[in-house]
Amino acid sequence: MTVREPAFPDLEHLVSPTSVVLVGASDTPGSVGARLTENVIDHSSIPGDVYLVNARRSQVHGKRAYSSVLELPTTPDVAVIVVAASLVGAIVRDCAQIGIPFAAVLSSGFSEAGGDGVALERELREIADQTGIRIYGPNSPGISNIRARIGLNFSPAFAADLTSGPIGLATQGGGLGRTLLQASDRGLGVARWLSSGNEADLEISDFIHHLASTDEVEVIVAIIEGIRDGARFAAAALHARAAGKPIIAIKLGRSEYGRAAAMSHTTSMTGEAQINSAVFDQLGITEVEDISDLIDTAALFAQRRPGPHERVAIYTYSGGTAALAADGIGARNIELAEFDAATGNALEQALPRFGTRSNPVDTGTEVLAKPEMVRASLEPVLRDPNVGLTVVPVPIEMGQTTATLAEELVGLARTSGATVLPIWMTDRLGLGYRILTDGGVVPSRSLSTGLNAIHSWVRAGRRTLDFEPDWRPAVMTQPASASGVQGATLAENEAKALVSRAGIETPAGVVVSTADEAATAAARLGFPVAMKISSADIAHKTDIGGVALNVEEAEEARQTYLSILESVASAAPTARIDGVLVERMERVRGYEALLAAHRDPTFGPIITIGVGGVLVEIMKDAAHAMAPVSSDTARRLLAQTQLGQIMTSPRGRPAADLAPLANAIRALSELISTDPDIREIEINPLLVSYDGARVIALDALAVVASKGPTDD
Amino acid sequence: MTVREPAFPDLEHLVSPTSVVLVGASDTPGSVGARLTENVIDHSSIPGDVYLVNARRSQVHGKRAYSSVLELPTTPDVAVIVVAASLVGAIVRDCAQIGIPFAAVLSSGFSEAGGDGVALERELREIADQTGIRIYGPNSPGISNIRARIGLNFSPAFAADLTSGPIGLATQGGGLGRTLLQASDRGLGVARWLSSGNEADLEISDFIHHLASTDEVEVIVAIIEGIRDGARFAAAALHARAAGKPIIAIKLGRSEYGRAAAMSHTTSMTGEAQINSAVFDQLGITEVEDISDLIDTAALFAQRRPGPHERVAIYTYSGGTAALAADGIGARNIELAEFDAATGNALEQALPRFGTRSNPVDTGTEVLAKPEMVRASLEPVLRDPNVGLTVVPVPIEMGQTTATLAEELVGLARTSGATVLPIWMTDRLGLGYRILTDGGVVPSRSLSTGLNAIHSWVRAGRRTLDFEPDWRPAVMTQPASASGVQGATLAENEAKALVSRAGIETPAGVVVSTADEAATAAARLGFPVAMKISSADIAHKTDIGGVALNVEEAEEARQTYLSILESVASAAPTARIDGVLVERMERVRGYEALLAAHRDPTFGPIITIGVGGVLVEIMKDAAHAMAPVSSDTARRLLAQTQLGQIMTSPRGRPAADLAPLANAIRALSELISTDPDIREIEINPLLVSYDGARVIALDALAVVASKGPTDD
Repeated sequence: MTVREPAFPDLEHLVSPTSVVLVGASDTPGSVGARLTENVIDHSSIPGDVYLVNARRSQVHGKRAYSSVLELPTTPDVAVIVVAASLVGAIVRDCAQIGIPFAAVLSSGFSEAGGDGVALERELREIADQTGIRIYGPNSPGISNIRARIGLNFSPAFAADLTSGPIGLATQGGGLGRTLLQASDRGLGVARWLSSGNEADLEISDFIHHLASTDEVEVIVAIIEGIRDGARFAAAALHARAAGKPIIAIKLGRSEYGRAAAMSHTTSMTGEAQINSAVFDQLGITEVEDISDLIDTAALFAQRRPGPHERVAIYTYSGGTAALAADGIGARNIELAEFDAATGNALEQALPRFGTRSNPVDTGTEVLAKPEMVRASLEPVLRDPNVGLTVVPVPIEMGQTTATLAEELVGLARTSGATVLPIWMTDRLGLGYRILTDGGVVPSRSLSTGLNAIHSWVRAGRRTLDFEPDWRPAVMTQPASASGVQGATLAENEAKALVSRAGIETPAGVVVSTADEAATAAARLGFPVAMKISSADIAHKTDIGGVALNVEEAEEARQTYLSILESVASAAPTARIDGVLVERMERVRGYEALLAAHRDPTFGPIITIGVGGVLVEIMKDAAHAMAPVSSDTARRLLAQTQLGQIMTSPRGRPAADLAPLANAIRALSELISTDPDIREIEINPLLVSYDGARVIALDALAVVASKGPTDD
Repeated sequence: MTVREPAFPDLEHLVSPTSVVLVGASDTPGSVGARLTENVIDHSSIPGDVYLVNARRSQVHGKRAYSSVLELPTTPDVAVIVVAASLVGAIVRDCAQIGIPFAAVLSSGFSEAGGDGVALERELREIADQTGIRIYGPNSPGISNIRARIGLNFSPAFAADLTSGPIGLATQGGGLGRTLLQASDRGLGVARWLSSGNEADLEISDFIHHLASTDEVEVIVAIIEGIRDGARFAAAALHARAAGKPIIAIKLGRSEYGRAAAMSHTTSMTGEAQINSAVFDQLGITEVEDISDLIDTAALFAQRRPGPHERVAIYTYSGGTAALAADGIGARNIELAEFDAATGNALEQALPRFGTRSNPVDTGTEVLAKPEMVRASLEPVLRDPNVGLTVVPVPIEMGQTTATLAEELVGLARTSGATVLPIWMTDRLGLGYRILTDGGVVPSRSLSTGLNAIHSWVRAGRRTLDFEPDWRPAVMTQPASASGVQGATLAENEAKALVSRAGIETPAGVVVSTADEAATAAARLGFPVAMKISSADIAHKTDIGGVALNVEEAEEARQTYLSILESVASAAPTARIDGVLVERMERVRGYEALLAAHRDPTFGPIITIGVGGVLVEIMKDAAHAMAPVSSDTARRLLAQTQLGQIMTSPRGRPAADLAPLANAIRALSELISTDPDIREIEINPLLVSYDGARVIALDALAVVASKGPTDD
């Protein structure tokens, strides 16, 4: 079995080139070519040569213009191309011919425009494959290396992109990436921004891998419209995790409306967003749902990576605000820190009139007018060993008062090394706000957003305990299954044979073809038995009289055989019938689970666990993970479900042992990971005895790549 | 039975006084007295006299100062008092003596300070009761009548509070109210702000009632820390609803961190915050969780009150933003509008290069540079008959481009009368942002907040269909039950007798005192029977061997009687035993519900419905409402629960008839509403047959005000 080892190109010379050539350089005011030329010549610091190519002019922007890249005296690292789409292919071939390693195609008019554009983009992909040149774009807003002051883009705003910091930004479209850059007005600093456009060759996973490999980047922010290759994405994310660089991501197209708006190519499967979120979580990616959350969360992670047990303090000058913040913290299941005795004493001395010595701290406004009072009350909180992060909501701009608070906060955060999150809740942006944004503390702009960020941060810290360093999902280590092949549904006994192969118990049973065989089999298995029509063509057996339960005697089994066949013959006359499955009925009482595995088109084998039986649609209690999973991961998955909760704290019963069910989850995840022919297995109900000891697949459904025996 | 009719004072002369006296007027720079004096004399437009009282000076702020209110030549409408807490009581008595109708006590040092302050506040309450003067405060930040330019407060910011608008603001503390006033920087206009402080007399419900009665107020915003009197609150809210004035509210103290553990069995399971939220919903109050949501939601309601079927359009110039907004709309279950054919054609003409003719509209950035192109594409969307609201996310500040968009949006909204919500997502606040805020459209500052506001708005519109104009909760029409009286738990058969009184079926049964009686009773009832120990002292009967099910024969009943008594005697030797309850076991199969009623200390009788049985703690599926409820309201409550969902779309069964269960909910809600002795009734499980036709209380628990017969 061939193992896929996702490999990643070194993009350092693309993002920090020594020399570049601009193809389509121009003087025409306001044109894309002119804006690119200005950004590179006037606003960038390229250490080596900048060549301009313009087919119709010999001089552009006061510099010599070549008519073709073939004329260049030396070979630059990157060709930035902004000419019409129809001309791009030939130019990229020329670039490849003279050994330029990277072509950044910013031109639009490719697959996003439909029509001829689709073929033009396919051609680019072929050139990359044939020549080895790596293509960035097309239809990309370009590259912004803000730290190094290199702007290979045509944005009129690049000249003002001067705030660099520890954020590495990877996007596919352009718009929302620039929203993040404009958060520089709030103190956010971006080191590098890469935006993949249509991904003819290089894709967002390459940029995530690059940013994770770059020293100046500490936190990676990704805005993702679609993932082309789940294996490469997972590999890039695991690389970032190993490098200690958290990824904060937004996934567009989570809803039906969003998918339609994004015109995403990914298949519109129900539950796709949940699977995507589960995969992100498993890979250690923090998913958020809004740009404001993305900014606040990235800024907080950039301040400090969270530990496994972070607790929070609230420090504010308004009682209502303290209560509202505490409510928000409670609602998000974040823990408020309990102060050290020393902190309590220091607060009592610093705030004698109020006597606040516990968390949240409400100083009142008068205290804040005096810097020494702010310091005396804020510093012990920041230095308290039980406090991981101090959130400082500022509900009202109060001139010098809030300026003093901001100044002390910035100063004390710096000297104490404490992690702080000011939340500037008011629309009035005064001196205090400026002091914060200039002081390198990115204030949140609403309590919800700030507390969302804290929640993500605390949770990511807790999740570090779950990290299994050697784990790799099957999508990274196995060949993709042939998705073109027609799938075939198995009969129940065949599906159960598959389940058995995973070591999961199934009821003893046999398929019989006559009434006499039914009676004999039932007697041998032991009464009562269940009898079910055996046919791969019949999905809902109960509805058509294809199932009988609690058959108690041989004669009853004989009669039941005949009545099942009669019912089915009249309700489903065209179904191919294998016979009747006779099964011993288990006397075990317990919980009904749903355990399933299927193959996601992007992320490969996925395992699903949750409440099963008749409640499955109502409770929508499903946790997912990329397969394979260890028993430990299976147990954590289970803990996310209502099934896991009811098993560990049932009403009026001892808690169940979760190990046998966790083992079944692991086993099924390994089965689908190692057998590429299995498309889907769903066990529902999976009966788990109240004590957890027995785990029995009462019903099973399976789809395989082709009809036939699947046993080894 | 005495009916409580909550009455409300007319506060017009408090909020818009013709003349006032300031007690504690001062010249001392920065003092509370000086700030109050400046706000009233320099920054307010009081039509009549402003008197100053200062016990130690004859002149203040260049005006005559009286030494006591008793010296005043005429009687003002309001005395604003800022002297030390210990002096306030005597001054309020003087005010009452000369017939001043309102005393606004801004001084602190009352109950919030503890100690003597508690007694000082009690004295104020007594003066109000004895003399009829109405007291505002104490410990209040004052009154801001921004529309009329009257500031009876000591805020240094009042001089700048010049943006008035249709919002009426009622708070209890001061801090967060001022956050709302500072949203004037975003275009929000507040007409009047009242803040009740410690509520010695006037309370937040009085202000809500006042604001609802004031023509210039269209939307009421409330920030609520605690509700003193649920009946008056409900009456004020229903008054606002009848007046067509929506209330947008934040309730502080929703989390564990902010409140004590609830008392009753049912509330401790679901929590006080859920009851509060359910009551708000029932009263038509829109509850939000953050100040930013409060601002955005209030601004949207102020723009237009929602109809029952609002659909939304998205108009933006960034594809990623369109997708993100569409995702947010999908996640919130808001409907995107389908455009008219005419709109589609107009869009195709206006945006030829993109060919967008559907919702969301993504124009691209180039189009936006031209005002006529913006108009040609935006106007048909705003005027589309299927579009109730157009959301316009602005992800990036783009100088003239975004200014043009803002200008066209403001202009077209005005001429078309369309409801619009721009969302200024970027931290860069440029000219376009100013055009919006100055143009009377309050932009949201994040997608989440804006879409939360739209969600609340659409939902409130849908809810108008549920309005039962004549409905009044029991808390408004019944005397409060004596909460001091000790509650007594009833034995199961007594609790079931109560349930029967509500017309809800209970199993046929009888309490027996000997083994022979048990056998006879069982035979008479018909086998199988259930047998349970009958004792008000035993809550968990099963755990101590006090329950036997499926007793099949007379002799078995006899033996079971003895073994139950033996088990109970050894496990609970001190429990008082009434005997053993013998009940016919119902052969009905169905859903297990929990139906409960209890008495909330603030809101009176509350009804609860949800999934019951063993799943109750796991599924936490409880909907609540103030009793009594109609069958229609009961059915809507049911629709909010997973129980209602599973009954209406069960797997493999016809949908259940909800009417019998809705009737049972109504009946129990009427029982607790009309019998003030009932503290709590919990029926769990309430068995609802799969077809819905039969509703049987299999177990019941009741607490009443005093032990004894509760039948009429």
